[in-house]
Amino acid sequence: MSKAVSDKKVVKTLIDICISEGLREVVISPGSRNAPLTLTFAAHDEFECFSIVDERSAGFFALGMAQQTGRPVALVCTSGSALLNYAPAISEAYYQNVPLVVISADRPLEWIDQADGQTIRQLGALDNFVKYSCQLPTSKNASSWHVNRVVSEAFYHCRFKLAGPVHINVPLAEPLYGKTVHAEEKQRQIKQVTSCSSIADESIKQLSEEWGANDKVLIVAGMLQPNTEFQQILRQLSDMEQVVVLAETTSNINGDHIICGIDKTVSTITEEEVHFFKPSLLITFDGAVVSKMVKTFLRNYPAKGHWHISPVSRHLDTYKQLSTSIEAQPLEFFKQLLPHISEVKSRYRTTWLKRAERSEKHHDEYLVKNGWNDLKAYAHLASHLPKNWQIQWGNSSAIRYAQLFKAFYNNNSYSNRGTSGIDGCVSTAVGASYISEQPSLLIVGDLSFMYDSNGLWNNYLKPNLRIVVINNGGGGIFRFIPGPSDSEELETYFEASHQLNVQPLAEMYGVKYLMANNEETLNETIEQLFAPGDRPIILEIKTPAKENAGVLKSYFKRLKEEL
Amino acid sequence: MSKAVSDKKVVKTLIDICISEGLREVVISPGSRNAPLTLTFAAHDEFECFSIVDERSAGFFALGMAQQTGRPVALVCTSGSALLNYAPAISEAYYQNVPLVVISADRPLEWIDQADGQTIRQLGALDNFVKYSCQLPTSKNASSWHVNRVVSEAFYHCRFKLAGPVHINVPLAEPLYGKTVHAEEKQRQIKQVTSCSSIADESIKQLSEEWGANDKVLIVAGMLQPNTEFQQILRQLSDMEQVVVLAETTSNINGDHIICGIDKTVSTITEEEVHFFKPSLLITFDGAVVSKMVKTFLRNYPAKGHWHISPVSRHLDTYKQLSTSIEAQPLEFFKQLLPHISEVKSRYRTTWLKRAERSEKHHDEYLVKNGWNDLKAYAHLASHLPKNWQIQWGNSSAIRYAQLFKAFYNNNSYSNRGTSGIDGCVSTAVGASYISEQPSLLIVGDLSFMYDSNGLWNNYLKPNLRIVVINNGGGGIFRFIPGPSDSEELETYFEASHQLNVQPLAEMYGVKYLMANNEETLNETIEQLFAPGDRPIILEIKTPAKENAGVLKSYFKRLKEEL
Repeated sequence: MSKAVSDKKVVKTLIDICISEGLREVVISPGSRNAPLTLTFAAHDEFECFSIVDERSAGFFALGMAQQTGRPVALVCTSGSALLNYAPAISEAYYQNVPLVVISADRPLEWIDQADGQTIRQLGALDNFVKYSCQLPTSKNASSWHVNRVVSEAFYHCRFKLAGPVHINVPLAEPLYGKTVHAEEKQRQIKQVTSCSSIADESIKQLSEEWGANDKVLIVAGMLQPNTEFQQILRQLSDMEQVVVLAETTSNINGDHIICGIDKTVSTITEEEVHFFKPSLLITFDGAVVSKMVKTFLRNYPAKGHWHISPVSRHLDTYKQLSTSIEAQPLEFFKQLLPHISEVKSRYRTTWLKRAERSEKHHDEYLVKNGWNDLKAYAHLASHLPKNWQIQWGNSSAIRYAQLFKAFYNNNSYSNRGTSGIDGCVSTAVGASYISEQPSLLIVGDLSFMYDSNGLWNNYLKPNLRIVVINNGGGGIFRFIPGPSDSEELETYFEASHQLNVQPLAEMYGVKYLMANNEETLNETIEQLFAPGDRPIILEIKTPAKENAGVLKSYFKRLKEEL
Repeated sequence: MSKAVSDKKVVKTLIDICISEGLREVVISPGSRNAPLTLTFAAHDEFECFSIVDERSAGFFALGMAQQTGRPVALVCTSGSALLNYAPAISEAYYQNVPLVVISADRPLEWIDQADGQTIRQLGALDNFVKYSCQLPTSKNASSWHVNRVVSEAFYHCRFKLAGPVHINVPLAEPLYGKTVHAEEKQRQIKQVTSCSSIADESIKQLSEEWGANDKVLIVAGMLQPNTEFQQILRQLSDMEQVVVLAETTSNINGDHIICGIDKTVSTITEEEVHFFKPSLLITFDGAVVSKMVKTFLRNYPAKGHWHISPVSRHLDTYKQLSTSIEAQPLEFFKQLLPHISEVKSRYRTTWLKRAERSEKHHDEYLVKNGWNDLKAYAHLASHLPKNWQIQWGNSSAIRYAQLFKAFYNNNSYSNRGTSGIDGCVSTAVGASYISEQPSLLIVGDLSFMYDSNGLWNNYLKPNLRIVVINNGGGGIFRFIPGPSDSEELETYFEASHQLNVQPLAEMYGVKYLMANNEETLNETIEQLFAPGDRPIILEIKTPAKENAGVLKSYFKRLKEEL
């Protein structure tokens, strides 16, 4: 039963608690100081251990797994700057509410800042972006009680009420490689009984009265985990005449009356029409919203009331009009509210749906005539995408194009919109694809792909992983923004234009490579892309750098036209 | 005279101060929020601006430049996780005392944590590893006095007394791309008059008395900037019978009586001989020491006295025996001390020099018979290395092998030994080589090279840059450490063994590629490596993974043998 593991009792206790907390995935980066952790995690069948050298990539790989499973994933690194390479993934996890447990080996505390190797200030290094951080005791005789208490609390914060990253710093003295079979010691497991977030009857009564008094209710869904029960509730709400539900690809919902594609519709609203379209009651949940247009629209034309529903009250005021902060899981809240509310006579939903329909028509017509450019490439991807794939979207061109095509709303979509950085999308996709049953597609721009090319440097690329790199030779998004497109510094400092292609990277990491640089070659390659095979595939789609911004501008102009 | 720059006065003031402080190199990563900074830096001929997409790489690139010039180099990034990607380079700069000025654009403060894009907690994110951090005011009418004061102070801390990184956070509201010609406003420049670190006569008298009472003075030099005047002083000291000076490649000193190669000598000292070799007075300065052997030796056999000389008194106690902390620049201190001290009759120097000579003889003999492995590859590099190159050493196998060959002590050597991470060595070398007149050679292991392969992703690879990747298929250093080499987890979790070669990366970035996998091919390629050419070159030297550790063990065993 007992196994030879690190002879350090602190490590044994830590890892016993990880087992009792149900931790499964452990991403380890090589090092010496973390050897006691590595030896012990690797010795237990309860864990699946992954070895990834680059900690920045390891962090996002873990994020991708935890994003799929909702379970905490552990990150284990050695002392020194290793820990700091996790920071980008940890900040993304913090703002995306993904549970990660960072376990960093450290030098014994007495050596910090003493010019010995890797004796840097690790404790607190991630504190801006973790929900909890602690340091384990160093003494050989440290009580299991102490370790047990702080590690239990770390897991609590990692999971509840909004999930997020936590940091456990583990100072370890040499020798590091000793193993022993410890005497059995049953670890106390602190059970967590969480309160259910039910709202008092009196409050439900008040809120349902407010609901009833509004004939223009706008629900804006940001990033949501796929959840059929919640989708069902939003569909039910969207069946009421006075309710409009706006969704993005990353909301992972759709429905007959749900408007999928915010920008396509909001961009067409003229100043004269604002009073038809602006809500009297706005309802939102946690989860980042991609559309800048809807944020601007709502900030400029505030509703009378704005409910934000979140298990943690933070007075999140994205739209500058928050009037009611509702402390609840949105699903539970609506289950409570629904029996008390009903349809209100209104033309609000019809107004929005008609406009969405008009935009869709313009969209289709525009694309027929459209030449070879990013928009066309996305259109092809959308029309060939098989069902039941999960898509990871890069920042930030890709996730914006994602919103424009209905077909993308039928698949599960994910994107690192917590911090909206261009870092880490390849590693996230590789991690997510590894743990998911579904085939996975990453759609990403050239800069974002190359930023995280180390995401391919591991042994966990599954044959059903597909990567589409839209290579327009730089950060084309800057050509769409009025400021930089007029500026002489555009090519060098904003767009960072380049002539690279990604084929050598595919070769380096044993990934099959396809390339398309016009409609014809895209049609040829796209079938290969989605066909099952024994190797992951990168499809590089080369588009001209300079036309894309003009195309998008004329596209949005066209959407605005009357029929 | 006046130029159109960002219309934001805060930015104009900030950058005017950067000019008056003599800032020259500015490394910019693309983004939108930092557009006002980008536009304004790019508009001034006083700056040389660099565009690097991956902020982790940009940070180390800036570090490489500042390491060469000793001048502050600025890093400019957009809002969000961009800043966090600087963290590894910033911690290295902090512990290596390299002056960097991080200038991060931020969202307006009122939006932080409000689920708008990239509104993360930037202020304080690097506080564990910067000497100073501040936030510029956001108001349009912010007084130049305020900006001037905090930015001046940032430059002060960046430069004095030990250089290091600082962080200036700059919240910026939209619109971001407006330009204007500002009215001329002369910026106050706060002159910094620093105290000279002279030691009171009374203290010099006491210290010279202590000096005179010791017939075994050991000076251990860690990482030092090349400095002929200081080298001259250390040579003068080493000419005294009672003085031994131990140096490493990164000490950038040599001399007839200076022992270059600590491990080769210290490893041979038997327990019976300790009383001959251990010092009665130990003298050290700032700058990390690579040799673990000398640290262990000195901790196990402490001297009666230990002087640590540093411009900042921190009671740095690397050897657990600090008795006197001397607040001075080492150069100035020895200039003051030298007239008051003299030679003491002693056999101390002779003992050490004889042993160093014996090791050198064994070293030469061992290498003649040695087969094909890492040690042999380094020997070839050492014997073919031209004069007047600068060498950047990767962590941590490379910098350890570096110590074993005398030839390496004739060139300037650098290594990221502040935190001793494997991250960032390619970018550091590229930055250093860009700004240096000398041809530059990076010698690095395979994991470290691939970790930072994005270091090649920029337009600043000079034709006289050379990179040698010693590819032994993983982190071979772990085979040398007793613990992991016995462990079943070795290949996966410690060594992270792989079958990659780096040729595709060379192809991707337009770098000439050479490969050697035995003595013969190495002899052929090494001449091409050091020949002038119009493109940077990577030489990949493939060595067998499994023999290296055994070779090093038998090498050190051989050194211990009597003649």
